[in-house]
Amino acid sequence: MPRVSQERLDARRRQILDAAARCFARNGFHATSMQDVLKEADLSAGAVYRYFSGKDELIAAIAGTVLAEVRAAFEEATTDSPPPPPDVVIGTVLRRVLHRQPMLEEAGESLYPRLMVQVWAETLRNPELHAILQEGFAEVRKPWVKIVEAYQDAGMMRTDIPAISVARTMVALAQGFLAQYALFGEAPVQVVELGLQALTSMDDPKARD
Amino acid sequence: MPRVSQERLDARRRQILDAAARCFARNGFHATSMQDVLKEADLSAGAVYRYFSGKDELIAAIAGTVLAEVRAAFEEATTDSPPPPPDVVIGTVLRRVLHRQPMLEEAGESLYPRLMVQVWAETLRNPELHAILQEGFAEVRKPWVKIVEAYQDAGMMRTDIPAISVARTMVALAQGFLAQYALFGEAPVQVVELGLQALTSMDDPKARD
Repeated sequence: MPRVSQERLDARRRQILDAAARCFARNGFHATSMQDVLKEADLSAGAVYRYFSGKDELIAAIAGTVLAEVRAAFEEATTDSPPPPPDVVIGTVLRRVLHRQPMLEEAGESLYPRLMVQVWAETLRNPELHAILQEGFAEVRKPWVKIVEAYQDAGMMRTDIPAISVARTMVALAQGFLAQYALFGEAPVQVVELGLQALTSMDDPKARD
Repeated sequence: MPRVSQERLDARRRQILDAAARCFARNGFHATSMQDVLKEADLSAGAVYRYFSGKDELIAAIAGTVLAEVRAAFEEATTDSPPPPPDVVIGTVLRRVLHRQPMLEEAGESLYPRLMVQVWAETLRNPELHAILQEGFAEVRKPWVKIVEAYQDAGMMRTDIPAISVARTMVALAQGFLAQYALFGEAPVQVVELGLQALTSMDDPKARD
């Protein structure tokens, strides 16, 4: 067997993972065959099985990566101090998720949200993936609660509502937009930025009398 | 073959669909076998295949029902005039979805959001289901845009942001909460009602000087 550099091994591994991610995004984990992945990667079975023992290992690798990347996107959006308004925070998260993997863009649309929905579905039946998801969500909530507390401290938001409720609501909005993007096709992030601007600037007409 | 009343035929069909929905909610469409459904329904293969030719027909029946029911929940929440504030509208939708099918409640948790996430994943690879979803979303947007326009007409919301952006944002929030409920376990609807109350009553501290 010829000696192969580590760099080349890593690149080959990456090539297989990217191909598998595209297949899974298009067709889900269970309806995708190893044949589909080989064809997408343009590699022989021998070349692929040298890196991954089979589909379960590929699913675990891809799903674990997606969960870690989405978690990182949610955490990275919370580092500015003082925190920008909610629509800016949400817009930052969404752009980070959508453009995380340029390999997963087709005709200007990111396939990443589709992959994320497939991973969500898979976590519902896979206890190991579910544990990773649960832990990530528990960790993500902390910096998002801090953002909400900063709004409260700055007098921008009422303090009689638990910060955790607002944090979960903001995270839900980002998750829901990603679901819409996956389900209904490319949608500008601006839609939800504008929508949230309108909601956060609502007036109670009675209060103005 | 004994004569069986239509009522009894319908009840048996319902029994099979409820069992299949529980299996699919727990394990997804593709990892669920017809054996799993037979066991859950406590029926023989003969009894089940009399009603459904196989798993594909069961998937189509369940997914079609879920898409129609979620669409109905989103449409029904928009009928009050004048429309209640956003947190009330969202709370109404969520409660309608969660309690749509009492057969899908286990230990106080609704399995319906899990089933919905599985249906979302399935629409990404099934063009017929995807067309049903797309049409439902297009129809649901109309009454939600009307709600937003009513907020604008009442002077409660700025008019320089397209109503469709706000409508999509509100729908995304409901979708995201249902995803959280599915992924992280039972969550009180009150979380998102309170969170949205806090967001819609935000103040810009600069504006108060």
